[in-house]
Order: sequence, then structure tokens, then C-alpha cells
Amino acid sequence: MTLIVQKYGGSSMGSIERIAHVARKVLAASQQQPTVVVVSAMQGETDRLLHLAKGLSERPNGRELDALLASGEQASSALLAIALNGLGAKARCYNGAQVPILTDNVHTKASIEEIPPENILNDLKAGYIVVVAGFQGVNEHGHVTTLGRGGSDTTAVALAGALKAKECQIYTDVAGVYTTDPRIVPQARLLSQITFEEMLEMASLGAKVLQIHSVELAGRYQVPLRVLSTFEEGAGTLIALEERLMKHSVVSGIAFNRDEARVSILGVADRPGMGAELLGSVSQLNIDVDMIVQNPSIAGTTDLTFTVHKNDYNTVMEVLQGKAQTLRAREVRGDARVAKISLVGAGMRSHPGVATQMFEVLGQEGINIQLVSTSEIKISVLVDEKYLELGVRALHAAFGLENEPNQEYLSR
Amino acid sequence: MTLIVQKYGGSSMGSIERIAHVARKVLAASQQQPTVVVVSAMQGETDRLLHLAKGLSERPNGRELDALLASGEQASSALLAIALNGLGAKARCYNGAQVPILTDNVHTKASIEEIPPENILNDLKAGYIVVVAGFQGVNEHGHVTTLGRGGSDTTAVALAGALKAKECQIYTDVAGVYTTDPRIVPQARLLSQITFEEMLEMASLGAKVLQIHSVELAGRYQVPLRVLSTFEEGAGTLIALEERLMKHSVVSGIAFNRDEARVSILGVADRPGMGAELLGSVSQLNIDVDMIVQNPSIAGTTDLTFTVHKNDYNTVMEVLQGKAQTLRAREVRGDARVAKISLVGAGMRSHPGVATQMFEVLGQEGINIQLVSTSEIKISVLVDEKYLELGVRALHAAFGLENEPNQEYLSR
Repeated sequence: MTLIVQKYGGSSMGSIERIAHVARKVLAASQQQPTVVVVSAMQGETDRLLHLAKGLSERPNGRELDALLASGEQASSALLAIALNGLGAKARCYNGAQVPILTDNVHTKASIEEIPPENILNDLKAGYIVVVAGFQGVNEHGHVTTLGRGGSDTTAVALAGALKAKECQIYTDVAGVYTTDPRIVPQARLLSQITFEEMLEMASLGAKVLQIHSVELAGRYQVPLRVLSTFEEGAGTLIALEERLMKHSVVSGIAFNRDEARVSILGVADRPGMGAELLGSVSQLNIDVDMIVQNPSIAGTTDLTFTVHKNDYNTVMEVLQGKAQTLRAREVRGDARVAKISLVGAGMRSHPGVATQMFEVLGQEGINIQLVSTSEIKISVLVDEKYLELGVRALHAAFGLENEPNQEYLSR
Repeated sequence: MTLIVQKYGGSSMGSIERIAHVARKVLAASQQQPTVVVVSAMQGETDRLLHLAKGLSERPNGRELDALLASGEQASSALLAIALNGLGAKARCYNGAQVPILTDNVHTKASIEEIPPENILNDLKAGYIVVVAGFQGVNEHGHVTTLGRGGSDTTAVALAGALKAKECQIYTDVAGVYTTDPRIVPQARLLSQITFEEMLEMASLGAKVLQIHSVELAGRYQVPLRVLSTFEEGAGTLIALEERLMKHSVVSGIAFNRDEARVSILGVADRPGMGAELLGSVSQLNIDVDMIVQNPSIAGTTDLTFTVHKNDYNTVMEVLQGKAQTLRAREVRGDARVAKISLVGAGMRSHPGVATQMFEVLGQEGINIQLVSTSEIKISVLVDEKYLELGVRALHAAFGLENEPNQEYLSR
């Protein structure tokens, strides 16, 4: 059975009018092929329930909190099914236990273990549109679990995998994934296609369209994902396997992050385990470290530089100043007014000149590069935060991102 | 295991503060014996969900509507469990499918078929307070069902039966069942005890404290019911089997109903099937008939008088005037300004003088009796509605209902 899975988030389900609008979109899709829909709770509902719970207990028990929060998606899935029935379609809602979406026992952050597809497939065969409550599942004891915030995306992707769907369409309030933030570069172009790996780099670097976990999951299940707008017409952005790509752009997009702060400890003895000791003192505080660069040793000492979230900057500086004394390091320096710019593109693998071109462009604009970090499909640089917009715009123009590349993904 | 079931309605669960209050009451009860709690949705929640559904479809599908409405009780049961956990108690919430409360397939008005008690008993043995979402169940297909409005009372009684509870306590916003409406008779007394049959007559006659169906069910399961207030201290009213009663009052209470209208068709041919034809023409319109009296035949013709709801009076008069022509009846008469007063008491069975005393009392007050109807434990009279208060007060005083009888139920 060739079917699709659609997912509508809380803002798409925010009112009677919006649910009616979603119902019309779902009905149109279901006239093309069997359709399964995953929905989030109505906008504001999860927060309302959380507020009630917090009013009754400072730390609500996970099992009961999950039962509480899951009710929001149960209601919205029923409402969408009611709307579809009202349009003359056959539709049925499912809660997590009814599918069933089997998860582990980690309440409030459960992981999906298995989704037996029989119940849904039987209803699809019988001509029903199936509406599934997102964000929730059921564990081996029959207790309701939830997948954590954004879990409805995960539900949709996992369902698409289990049902071998042709495509998993994530409807949001943006038109898709752009080459960069259109608020900074008005010429930013909607990407028609992007690889899973590129999407992961784009998402983790600040273009928050999709939950990272659901992109990873889609890649693992090889489920083509499409991000598109609930409120505007358009094909959105298809996120697919690189193998589906005939040729590809060298650079697909530019991500950036204003929240980074840079910290350096200079002139520390260059001995095995030193880096681990320094970073360990930070990660002990549950503080994430992003970019890490260690300079070559000069005269038995070395410099270690890394970035953390701006909110953690003061804490980390204090910890390192303590460490510096113990380890007899020369100096601790830091700067909280920095930003990270990243070029992302699967094509970089075969085009080694990208870094050079990036540095040239930034140099021409008088932007000093403080730190560089690279992966196979990404080059990130740290710059003074006042140059962020200038840098992004210059790179967007230099790499020609405003123009559609004359290369295409193979249709599946 | 000697346990109790408590049920709290929507107004008892109307806010964070009220849920916290209920949690303290439940905790106190659970320190005396194992306790199962059944809750309704928070006040206003069911109406809010219904309004959303009606905004999406004029006639929402039963299966989806049930899934929608059931979410309200799932949320409130989780909230109470969270509140109990917050007080340091061990508590777990259950939805209808988790108990499981097995029902038939009649969506929006399902009947409970069976409640396997093992899951709840296991949790009680493990020291948990069990909080069950009222009003809902699950059918053989795993679909969520609801029991209709007031269904949480039914859930509580059926659970008490299945768990062989010592008592099923229904918490409401009244202190219990009174001898009559205290707004009419300030001396009205809170009944400490009443039989199931008396309660059925009192409830159906207008003292709307409990759902009739749940009283019937409690009688069938022989589960002692207790009605009491969430907001005031007090033992409320125990509703139990008559066999538990050592002696009993002759008259327990006075019910009344202002909504009746009287209709008579006079001088109609007295032949078999005539009554059925006349009443059939009314019941075809889905109009309920309450009291029915047929006078002895005189010269081959008879008079048939019955009462209907005031709202149906005009419709019924029209129908009967049509019928009167066809059947060549002499006349159709009616009066919408009537009211019914009923004495209820299990002791009437052995005290045949009650009717005589009732008629004497009303006669002394100059109140004419228009119609009489009796059952084993009830005498109802129809009077001019302007005499309703006077009649109820006179009867309340004459039968000494303001005084506690010196008779008691056996403790179970």
C-alpha cells in the first residue's frame, strides 16, 4: 500500500477554524492515496495542563504527568477525526495505546521501540483516514508514556517507517527549509531538497524547523521527509537520502548561532589527559561544549579553546580560573560576544576548495576568524558577533545561494 | 480486602484548589482502608470539548466523540494522582481501558459489561491509592466508549461492585438526601439512611442528587451507597438494602414535581385497545406519560386522564383534539397549572392508613386532589400548582418528618 503520513503541529490545530482547515487539507490528500495523520495538542493545551500539574505538585510523578499530557493529543486527534467525518470522509482517531506505539519505560522522555502496523493498515484498507495522537505511546505495563516535547514529529516519522510510507509530511508555520534565515538575507531561497545529513547540520546550528531526533530517525528508517506550511500552498522542502540526489550543490545553506561564547586556557602543560581534565570540569556541571580547538604544542605547553552557550559563560570562566591555578596555566581568556557561521553542504566532500573560498570572502569583508571547526559536510567559523549579518550575507551571495542549482534529486 | 470507592464530581474537581482539597480528603480515607477514587472531568471541561466538536461537525460520530470526551476524565484523574503524590502518598491514575472497564459498543451511552478487578487489586495491595477516570470504558474492539452524562456515578458503583467494596461514597455539593426540598420546608431533615427503592422514587420524582441508573445498579450489586458533601463535614445519607433496616419510618420523604400537566379525554367508547390507541398517539411523538388514570366505564364510555411534561402540553392537546374527533369522544380537557406531590416510604407496605392520612391533611388545608396514583412505597397526588408549597409543608409536619425516627439500619 502506497501511503503518506502527515503531521500537523499545535499551531496548525490552534482553533476550530484551523482544525477545519487541516481537515480540508487531509481530505484532499486522502483522495490521492491512503493517508495517516499525526497531530499535536491544540496550541496552549500542553502548557495549560502542565500549569495545573505544577499547581498540585512541585515535581509531578512521570507516570501521572504522561497520562495527563497525553490527553491533549487524544482530544485533538478526536477533533480532527470529527471534522473529517463532518466533511463526509471516513476517519478514525487512535491514541498511542490503540495503535499501539510501544515504548520503553522512561516516562516523559520515552523512546519508541516498535509499532505493529496491523490495526492502522486494516483501517486504511477499509477506507478510513487514520488520525493518530502524537507525542505518546504505551509501555510494557500498559502505562501511558510521552516522547518529550516535539515528540509528535517523532511519532510521525516512526509511523511512516513502520507503515513503509512513501513520504512523511511535516506541516508547520514555515514554508520549508531556507538557504539561511530570510530575516537576515532577504534573498534566502526555499530549498526544494536537502539531504538528511545537511538537515541535521542546519537544524542543530539554529534553523529550528524540525526536531533533530526526528530527522535522525527519518534517516535511519530511510523515510523521505517533507517540511511544508499548513497555511500557504507550496511543495515545501524534501529531506531525502543523498543517494536520491543526481548531482548536488556544493553548499546548500548557511546556518548560524548567536548564543556561543568562547573560552581559552593558554599555556597549559601539554600532557596526555590534560584536555579531558579541563573539559571534564565543565561537563561535570552539565554544560555542553560545542567547538573545541587545541593548538600545537610550543615548548611543552599548549592552548585549548572551546565554545559554550552564552548563559554558561560566567560559570565556565570561574571554573577555568580555578583550574588554571591548580594546573599552573598561564592565562584564561574568554569572549561572550561571538557568533558562529556555518556553511553546510553534502557537496563539500568532493570540493576541497570551499574552506578557502569561505575564508577569502570573510577576509574581503574585514571579518577576522577566531576559530575554525570542520566536519565532512560543514565548515564553521567563530567571528565577532557584530559581523554575523555581514558575514552571512557575503557568503550567501558569494556561493550563489539565491539561485536554484540546476541539479535535482531523483524522484523515489 | 475491605476497601471503599469514593467518587468526586466535576464541581469537586473544578480548580487546582479544589483538587488539592479532594486529595486531602482521599489521603485521610486511604489511611483508614484501601481506597479507590473515581473522578469526573473538571467542571466545564466536558462542555468545552463538546463545543469544539459541535464547531467541527453538526453530528459528531459517536466513536470519535467518546475518544474526545474521555480525555477530560483522563486529565482530571491524572491531576488527582499528581496531587496525592505531591502529598507524599503513592497514587496511580487509570483510564477506562487500563482498568479495564469493559463495555458494549453503544457509543456515547455504553453499558458496563465487566470489570476484571485484578489490576486495581494488585495496585491496592502494593499500597497505591487508585484514581480511575470516570464516565468511560473500552469495547471489544479496543475503542474508547463513554457511559453518558452522569456516567462517573455509574463507574463508581460498578467498580465498588466488582471490587466488593464496603461502601461507595458519592461526593457532591449537597450534604445528602433530605426529607424534602429545604427551600420549601426549612425544617427538612437530612436523612441518615434510606432504602434503594425509596431513593429511586425520590430521585425520579425530582430530588436530583444521584443518577437513577447508578442507584439501580447499586441495588443490583447490593453496594451500600453514601451521598455526602465534598465541601462540608458530615456522614451524609447512606442508601442501603431494606434488609439492613431493623425498623423503618412509614414515610421517609416527600418528593414533588412542578413540571407536570394534566390532560383528559372524556366520554370515549370503552372498548379494548382504546387506551393503547390514545397513549400510542402521544408516545409516537417521543413524549413521556407519567401518571395514568382511567375511570370506571359509565354507559359504555369512559374517561382517560394522564400527565405529561408541561413543555409537551400544547402538542399533546392538539394531538388529542384530533383523536377526539376520530374517536367521537365527548371532550378533551387539560390543565398545565398542576403539580405532583409524592409521599415515599418503604414502611407504607405495612401501613395501609398512609393514603387516608395524606388525603385528610390535604383536605384540611382545602387542597383538592385531582388525580391519585400509587405504588408499593409511594402515593402521588396531583394538585393545583399554587398549593404545592402549602401541601408539602402540611404533609411534612403531619408525618413528623422533621424528627429523626428512633429506628436504625443494622450496620453491615
